[in-house]
Formats: sequence, C-alpha cells, structure tokens
Amino acid sequence: MELSKKLREAYKACAHQVPGNGPRNIGVLKQAFAEIDAGLESDTYGKGPVIEDFENKMAGVLGKEKAVFFPSGTMAQQIAMRIWCDELSLHKVAYHPLCHLEIHEEDGLKKLHRIESVLLADKNRLITLADVQELGSDVACLLLELPQREIGGELPEFDELVAISDYCREEGIKLHMDGARLFEVLPYYQKTAAEVCQLFDSVYISLYKGVGGIAGAILAGSEPFAKEAFIWKRRHGGDLISLYPYILSADYSFEKRRDRFPAYLNGARELAAMYNGCHGVRTRPLVPVSNMFHVHFPLPKEKIEPVFLAVVEETGVGLTAVVYAVDEESSYFEISIGDNYGTIPKEKLQQAFSLLDEKMEVTLR
Amino acid sequence: MELSKKLREAYKACAHQVPGNGPRNIGVLKQAFAEIDAGLESDTYGKGPVIEDFENKMAGVLGKEKAVFFPSGTMAQQIAMRIWCDELSLHKVAYHPLCHLEIHEEDGLKKLHRIESVLLADKNRLITLADVQELGSDVACLLLELPQREIGGELPEFDELVAISDYCREEGIKLHMDGARLFEVLPYYQKTAAEVCQLFDSVYISLYKGVGGIAGAILAGSEPFAKEAFIWKRRHGGDLISLYPYILSADYSFEKRRDRFPAYLNGARELAAMYNGCHGVRTRPLVPVSNMFHVHFPLPKEKIEPVFLAVVEETGVGLTAVVYAVDEESSYFEISIGDNYGTIPKEKLQQAFSLLDEKMEVTLR
Repeated sequence: MELSKKLREAYKACAHQVPGNGPRNIGVLKQAFAEIDAGLESDTYGKGPVIEDFENKMAGVLGKEKAVFFPSGTMAQQIAMRIWCDELSLHKVAYHPLCHLEIHEEDGLKKLHRIESVLLADKNRLITLADVQELGSDVACLLLELPQREIGGELPEFDELVAISDYCREEGIKLHMDGARLFEVLPYYQKTAAEVCQLFDSVYISLYKGVGGIAGAILAGSEPFAKEAFIWKRRHGGDLISLYPYILSADYSFEKRRDRFPAYLNGARELAAMYNGCHGVRTRPLVPVSNMFHVHFPLPKEKIEPVFLAVVEETGVGLTAVVYAVDEESSYFEISIGDNYGTIPKEKLQQAFSLLDEKMEVTLR
Repeated sequence: MELSKKLREAYKACAHQVPGNGPRNIGVLKQAFAEIDAGLESDTYGKGPVIEDFENKMAGVLGKEKAVFFPSGTMAQQIAMRIWCDELSLHKVAYHPLCHLEIHEEDGLKKLHRIESVLLADKNRLITLADVQELGSDVACLLLELPQREIGGELPEFDELVAISDYCREEGIKLHMDGARLFEVLPYYQKTAAEVCQLFDSVYISLYKGVGGIAGAILAGSEPFAKEAFIWKRRHGGDLISLYPYILSADYSFEKRRDRFPAYLNGARELAAMYNGCHGVRTRPLVPVSNMFHVHFPLPKEKIEPVFLAVVEETGVGLTAVVYAVDEESSYFEISIGDNYGTIPKEKLQQAFSLLDEKMEVTLR
C-alpha cells in the first residue's frame, strides 16, 4: 500500500485521534435529529420557522440586521462580492493571495460573476493596513479572512482590524469578512462575535469546521443586502426546497459547541507547545490564536509520513491523517482542535510526543 | 382569517389529503435514515462511496456514461446550458416560454451565465418539431421539459420526440432534457428511462417531486460533460463537503417508489375523470399522461376557494391546499398524485366529489 494511504488508514482506525470533532459520519446527523419531532415541518424555499428562526438567531449572534442561510460558503461569498460590485458599479475586489475564492473555487468569481481580483500582500503574510492604503479606492470590496487559514490561522491584532475598517469606510470600500472560523478566534480577541462583525459590512460564517455541523453557511448584513443575497441564492441554485438537514444540525452543533471555543484555543496552544518541543518541528503560528495551526518540517513529505505512521501504530495516538508537501525539501500538515483533544489521556499524548521527538531526531540525522 | 389561509390550514389538518406523498416534515428524513448505520462515512466534496455509488446507479438507470449529483435542478440545468454554450461558442439556448429557467430562477441563466434565451412556441402549447425547424441552428442547445409542467403536464408523443432529436443531431443543436418528472411519464410512453434519455445529450432529473426525496437532482451525460459539470458545480457553490442527507434519502425514496409510477398515472386518470364529471370543472390534460394535471375553473379564485373549503370541512377530504388565479375570471390548481391517493377510501372520495359537483353547480349560477 502507498505510504500516504497507510497513514490515513492507520489514523482512521486508531484509538485516539487528536484533532477534530470526531468522524464525519451519518451518526453526526442521527445525533442532531434524535430529539427532533418527526412532525416538524420542513422549510420551503427559504421560508418557514425552521430556517427563519435560525437566521434570526444568527443575525442576533453576529449583530447584523439580517442573516441568510446558504448551503455553502463558496456560494455565500461570491454573492457578497457580486452585491457589493453591482452596488458600486465596479467589478473588482481585493483579498489575500491564498483566499478561498482565489484557490479553491475553480475561479467561480471570475467565470460566473466576471469579477476581477486584486491580490493583496505576499502569500506568506497577513494583509496589513499599509497594503490596504496602497489600494486606493479602486475596488468595490475588501475581503478579510479571520483567521487566515492557509498560513496556519494567523490573525491581525484587533486594533489593526479597526484601523482597516475605518480606512475602508472613509474610502467607500465595502469590507467583507470570511469568518469561516470566526467563533474560533473570539477567545483570542476577547470580543463577542457582534463586536468583531460590526467592523464589517457583510459577514460569512461556516457552520461545519469548528461548529461541527454537516455543511452550510450564514451570510449576514443589512436588510437590503440580505434581500439581494436571497435573490442571488436562487440564481445560484442554492434556494433548495428543503435545507433543514443542514440547518437543524447546524443549530444543534452551534448550541453544543458555542461555549467550547476557549477550551479549543487552550488545547491548540498546549498541543502546539508539544510539537515545538520536538526536534525539527515548528508550528505556525508558534503560539496559536485560534483552534488551528500548521505543523512544519524541514524534510520532504516522504520522510515525515513514516514518522507519524510509526507514532500511530506504536502508541494508538493519531496526530495527523495526512502530510502535505510544501516543496521538495519541506512539508506540513494542518491541525484543528475540537472535541477530540480533551478526551485523550495525557499520558498517551506524552508517550506519542516522546516517540515523535525520538523519531524526528533520527530522521533529521 | 384570510380565505386562502383558511383553505390551506383546513387542508393541512384534514384526514384525507388526496395529492402528494404526505407531509414534507422531518419524518421523511428520519424514516430514510432509520436503517442506515451511524458509522457510514460521509461523502467529501463529491467523493466517496455514498455519492459515487448513487451517481453510478443513476447513470445506469438513465443509460448515460456518467451522472453528477446536484443540490438543485436550478444549478444543474444552468450548468448544462453553460457547458453546451461554451462548447459551441454560442451563448444562446431555446426553450418553452414557461420553462423553469425563464420563470422561476430570477434570471440566473442571464445574470450568472450571460446566456440568451429564445422562447419557442406559444406559452399555452407544447413545442413541436415545426417550432424547432424554424429555429435553424442559431442556438447551442434546445431544452425540452417532459412533461411540460406549467401547462398541466402535457407531453409530446414519443415519435415527435424522436423527430426533434433527429433534427437537433443533424443541425448540431445539443438537446437537453428537463426531466424533473421523467419517471412520472415513463408509464405513458411505455419506455425505460434509458430509452427516452438516449434521445438527449444531457438529462436532468429531480429527486424530490414524484420520487419523494428531500431535495437534490441528477445531471447525466457523457464522461467529458460530467467532468465539466462537476467543475461548474464547485463554481456555483454546490460541491458541498457533505451532500449525504439528500443522497441517502433520494436513494431510499427512489427504491421505495420506482415501481409505483404506473399506479400514480392510473390514479391521476381516475381522479381527473372525477373532476371532469363536475359542473364547470375541466382538467388539463383532459386525460393525464403522467401523475400530474391542472384543474381549471371558469370562475375567479375567490369563488372557488370557498367551494374547496366546504368540501374539506364537510367531508375531511383535502382536494387542494391552494387555488391560483389565472386571471380575474378564471382560476386553477395543480395536482400531483403520489402515495396518498391509494390510501383514500373510495366512498370518501365519492362523497367529496358529490359535494364538489353540488357546490360548483350552485356557484356557477
């Protein structure tokens, strides 16, 4: 069997998976629906209590006038960009070079909406106020991702965010939040969701990832913005006759986890420290600011996979299911802390990290 | 309370709802998932046995090389149009004036894909071979809806369909099927799904409506067509991390109902005959060719609603939940036969239709 497949399967089968919220299986849906009455009526094309109650609740949480439930963030964010571009009659937006819209959506923004993108900052660092100031006002919208996932979940300081928001308002640039992991950064900012969201004209949040639902997203903003978003949702084919399988599981998962994000941040910091204590291992950020971080190695993926395979096979502790190549000489993987972390016996973790350190030392020779 | 609301609520609460497959509630999902093992792994961004097995099965049923699961028909069909338009470098398609893309999608085809539409035939009749011949070859694709829902579910004869298909192939026009209700017309055509689909280059089918799933659609065609469709699905924001709530319920519902469509056709014919036996009531088609038909009245909606309210209140038989205005002097509603029809005691139905006839006679005076 191929090494990467072997690692994936050993991880899947192991006793203690360290990251995540547990397996993505049908049980996630079954659990969410267990207590819901079979007679509860479906939402119908965006209408009905099941969808409207949840939208109202999330609008409240985010401190926005109105929220619209979407099947995906891809759909929600392209639509946000389109609304702002149409409003300003300027079909250009700015975002980070590793923005989801730029690298994961098959160029939907360009091919469906004909919106041009301006890539701000170097791909290996965060967007700063200075980057935004250089932009002038030649874009309709600036998208900021909190935290910046593809660089390990780095985050601007809150003051920098305020300064960027002030600048955009002065210049008439709409500010949109890719808050796929918004709840995950609130413990670091020590702010409520609404306090962060009020800096932005529109906000997208994901309902799986940290929240742990099955799929789905919320797009929130002013009443007129939401009205437009709903029309575009229909155009995109996202106004399904029934979205309740995602909505009800999102609500269930949100209630289950909304108070756990501080624990996830602590877990991420603890785990990152353990990684950084190993030979040749560095996390990014060095001290996490959310539930996520990247783990980097100065060796190719082919040298790192056997190390983690040995760790999971010998200790039953699954630290990662995959290793990605950065280039021919270095590799990394991503960690997101969820419910699993708190369930792993400390001595098991220590055993795994002792072995990891040992194996890394040998591998680095 | 407003009359139309009264009718809707009386219908909802009544003992015997005549059309449909039963309430659209959470129970539909619960039933479909009852026997599925909680450990079954989710699909992941279009990959994994849950989605691939179902796609392969539906490709087989439709006799196409490859099928792609979509969250909605709106998304699937716009994408089919786009693929054919891009392939032929001609951004124009032809369809019926009451096509779903023209009247129910907020102009997504135009606003997202910048595809122009040519409306064939008068809105009150089916597209014929002669209409298509007049087109020449100035469009990339012709979309035919089987049956034509907005005119009561009328259907071209199979020979006409073959002739249109032959003509399109000669002229290099791609032929796409809006088969939202394909299974529902097979008993009339006395053909398999594959025999009908082989006349078309691409085929969309719905997984709720007659099939009775929660939501979702299949788009099928050649291998390269499906490959393109998958990329566009991602662009539209339809390539969700998990689509299993729709897929598993679609599969469950398809297996449950795949052999019931002849019974639905018979039920529709029986019921239409009962309507046509009443004073001032005419169905379209007069003799149904699928599980659906429209019921027309030469009186305004405000005169017809009290009639059906009286019927449901006095007999417990819900014939319709709504009445729509055609214009100020006439009205109609739509009937789709599903599982409910077979469960209504015949004497109850007869009682309801006696009363309906009586009330109509009085109302017409």
